[in-house]
Amino acid sequence: MTKSALQIARAAYQPKLPKALKGAVKVVEGEATQSVADQEEIKKLFPNTYGMPLLKFVEGEQKEFAPVNVGVILSGGQAPGGHNVISGLFDGIKKMNPANRLYGFILGPGGLVDHNYKELTADVIDEYRNTGGFDIIGSGRTKLEKEDQFEKGYEILKELGIKALVIIGGDDSNTNACVLAEYYAAKNYGIQVIGCPKTIDGDLKNDMIETSFGFDTACKTYSEVIGNIERDCNSARKYWHFIKLMGRSASHIALECALQTQPNICLISEEVEAKNMSLDDIVTYIANAVVARAAEGNNFGTVLVPEGLIEFIPAMKKLIAELNDFLAVHADEYAAVEPNKQREYIISKLSADNAAVYASLPEGVARQLTLDRDPHGNVQVSLIETEKLLSEMVGKKLAAWKAEGKFAGKFSAQHHFFGYEGRCAAPSNFDADYCYSLGYTAAVLIANGKTGYMSSVRNLTAPAEEWIAGGVPITMMMNMERRHGEMKPVIQKALVKLDGAPFKAFAAVRDTWAKETAYVYPGPIQYFGPTEVCDQPTKTLQLEHQK
Amino acid sequence: MTKSALQIARAAYQPKLPKALKGAVKVVEGEATQSVADQEEIKKLFPNTYGMPLLKFVEGEQKEFAPVNVGVILSGGQAPGGHNVISGLFDGIKKMNPANRLYGFILGPGGLVDHNYKELTADVIDEYRNTGGFDIIGSGRTKLEKEDQFEKGYEILKELGIKALVIIGGDDSNTNACVLAEYYAAKNYGIQVIGCPKTIDGDLKNDMIETSFGFDTACKTYSEVIGNIERDCNSARKYWHFIKLMGRSASHIALECALQTQPNICLISEEVEAKNMSLDDIVTYIANAVVARAAEGNNFGTVLVPEGLIEFIPAMKKLIAELNDFLAVHADEYAAVEPNKQREYIISKLSADNAAVYASLPEGVARQLTLDRDPHGNVQVSLIETEKLLSEMVGKKLAAWKAEGKFAGKFSAQHHFFGYEGRCAAPSNFDADYCYSLGYTAAVLIANGKTGYMSSVRNLTAPAEEWIAGGVPITMMMNMERRHGEMKPVIQKALVKLDGAPFKAFAAVRDTWAKETAYVYPGPIQYFGPTEVCDQPTKTLQLEHQK
Repeated sequence: MTKSALQIARAAYQPKLPKALKGAVKVVEGEATQSVADQEEIKKLFPNTYGMPLLKFVEGEQKEFAPVNVGVILSGGQAPGGHNVISGLFDGIKKMNPANRLYGFILGPGGLVDHNYKELTADVIDEYRNTGGFDIIGSGRTKLEKEDQFEKGYEILKELGIKALVIIGGDDSNTNACVLAEYYAAKNYGIQVIGCPKTIDGDLKNDMIETSFGFDTACKTYSEVIGNIERDCNSARKYWHFIKLMGRSASHIALECALQTQPNICLISEEVEAKNMSLDDIVTYIANAVVARAAEGNNFGTVLVPEGLIEFIPAMKKLIAELNDFLAVHADEYAAVEPNKQREYIISKLSADNAAVYASLPEGVARQLTLDRDPHGNVQVSLIETEKLLSEMVGKKLAAWKAEGKFAGKFSAQHHFFGYEGRCAAPSNFDADYCYSLGYTAAVLIANGKTGYMSSVRNLTAPAEEWIAGGVPITMMMNMERRHGEMKPVIQKALVKLDGAPFKAFAAVRDTWAKETAYVYPGPIQYFGPTEVCDQPTKTLQLEHQK
Repeated sequence: MTKSALQIARAAYQPKLPKALKGAVKVVEGEATQSVADQEEIKKLFPNTYGMPLLKFVEGEQKEFAPVNVGVILSGGQAPGGHNVISGLFDGIKKMNPANRLYGFILGPGGLVDHNYKELTADVIDEYRNTGGFDIIGSGRTKLEKEDQFEKGYEILKELGIKALVIIGGDDSNTNACVLAEYYAAKNYGIQVIGCPKTIDGDLKNDMIETSFGFDTACKTYSEVIGNIERDCNSARKYWHFIKLMGRSASHIALECALQTQPNICLISEEVEAKNMSLDDIVTYIANAVVARAAEGNNFGTVLVPEGLIEFIPAMKKLIAELNDFLAVHADEYAAVEPNKQREYIISKLSADNAAVYASLPEGVARQLTLDRDPHGNVQVSLIETEKLLSEMVGKKLAAWKAEGKFAGKFSAQHHFFGYEGRCAAPSNFDADYCYSLGYTAAVLIANGKTGYMSSVRNLTAPAEEWIAGGVPITMMMNMERRHGEMKPVIQKALVKLDGAPFKAFAAVRDTWAKETAYVYPGPIQYFGPTEVCDQPTKTLQLEHQK
């Protein structure tokens, strides 16, 4: 494969490891743990993997390890650094015993079930060090949650002599990793399962997992292009740029990018929900900022919109629920209505509140809500172009205000959606180091016979040398939540906390940012320059550690 | 203003200058020049600025220069490096005589006409060295082409004691700079006018101007995100990404990005026109690539689409022309037609060929062609989402082929449009050096009393030390072209040459790229690393220089 100059130069980078992982490692056991909530239920569901102690690695004496084969799976959406988790894992198990072998399952958990794998030798690994993407073995979204999947997996693990499986994924994948660990333990199959915290969304974090990998690089990549757009915005002085950012439910990415680039407006879904804001409240909030800036001659601005916003607007949530219910029953009747009468038809069928919300939506979005449905008949919220919806409604409101003499400026919008641009970026130094350490940590957990643990590397705002590596029992992060109508043990998803330091820092300055043009231009991720340019963790992490 | 760590570190960068500009400069005059075509007409229109010699700078002896005030204007769309042209100009005139002063006209040529300006002192300049954007004085699209504008400009130039004006812009702005130079020369106003070649589009180039500034940085920024998307594409293995790229008429940006990232498909507008391809030809070409890749299990790919494509499809060009003519006369009649009968109505009114093309278009695009019209009543081609149009039509064709048993794969698309993401990126080392040299060159031209010249810095694939600086008479690049129904003297626009080295290099390998997954991941622009990573010019320039 042809490589860019940067790829070639970057291949030589040796990721930094915490001090404790540089030589022989000793595992120090902490106190027994409890799940964050619902202790009784979780304990009952995980008799073999519940209550295990926290583990911390310190420098130790050289030991001998029996050879072991290891499997690895990439699960779910791509995140920068996945290849470094795998190379850290590879180097880790080779260090324990050079006879150890690593197998990668192809295209996600499905590869385990379908017995689709390849051995990851030094040659393969060396091609992927410090690169972005998950293409070394691919990823997939198959959920490992059924016994027959576990058994199919066991067949191939046994065949390959694999004694430990590392699952690199988000909260759901790590929940499933724990279920699998418990299952194999209960069956005495002798197979360990270790999780690694991956997701650009940043919503897999807690006291023991300071951040999920990929969040750093993805946010920096988005902030680079947001900063470039802001500079364009501030040079041309004629557009409002509405920028939607990936991140599913949580607004961590939008918030981090806002802290890095200081846009005029950044919406935070969690706040919208907490304040019970309506779509019109949001539109009015933005329109007011447009008016205030126009009064100073600034007919331009930048608005960040988190991907999940729509579902956090309580009124929209209700509308979508009623639409789902109604169309589940009346889909054929609806389809028979003439296209230009469909809107009317829907309005006539909804409850008064929801009908009013529906009527307020621009044509295109209204249509999207009733036409584009997933195989379960549900509205596909992720397809809604929220950035265009908002700018269209803001434009309409401003036109009305103009007619009333309340607005004398100009309003013209451009739209952007960033997601795929950052999920496979080459990892920043931070993510390169963090991921390599997470993978290496997984190797140490395996060598020490652990299962049901997640790799944990903490103290991340300190130099890598001082990072603290160890393992966290996955059950410790669990609680019971309703999923598809059933109570399930799951890792608690971390949404943006409105009393957390990052949000509070943002909230304290956003009115100034809205009015003034306080843009910051982070520029592209740098790998070779001064440390203050190349090695800084996210603002989110820095603020959380100042607490 | 808050600055990012990179901005702070980058402020200290000292752009590299050609050897001849490092000390005292001697101006060597070459032969008298001719315009590229229509010599008689151009000569008649530019009696004072036609036929001037090419100028080349070499090392010379220190001279004394009388103090002079200089004005500068940024014209048209942003391009990375504009601030460095201005800082090079500033440093250049200060070196000639520290008493020299620089004034910037605000928000483009309109600032000259409206007497809106500010002095650019060392403090101001230092804030903007090596930064992206045009925000130091802003830019604008007012065209300087009328006598009363020239006279209004003269008033403020006289008032500020400005003896020379530097206009940083694209082909049209430089054409106008030359008209202004001629006008002031004819009037004996004693005001010199110098142009600088700016545009990310890359379409202002010729034998003397090897590239316009900003093209390098913009293409590298787009290639970064395209590479990231390709890596995502190759990891998830389930989407075809359709990526539209800015660049107005010319496909230089798409071609350069293709050379950097090796996508499966890159459309080149100039080729589409030369081969008289229809929209269906293009769609079939893409669909065939999808089928071939699907046959090998690769249901994913990346397609680059140049912004101007639609207008280069001869059949679409004809359709648009007929629509413009028809709606100019029948707009009211059309508006009175019921929305769901409008498509039928248009089809019934068009000539057979154009009606067939119109009928083949997806609903949304067809509507856009008749509804969204500019103030002159013309279709706004730039608003057409070509990337969505193509993927929709490819999807439709594949569905038909599937029904016929000719396609057994999957086809799912994602869409992107990159433009604003790169126009204001911080300049690469290349653009930082090139722009600074262009600005410095303008200062030398001014000090030597020149007018009607464009700054020229050549030999750009050699180290900056060996670059050749000088001046090119703008008339030399001109020919007569029909614009808005009138023959006008203009700088020849440089489209992609199908017999040029960059296109030929691409054409030689594109079939392989279409079938195989040959992606290259350039990663973000680096400023501090090894020279092969940080200092390479574009592939376009490298290939053109190999000729």
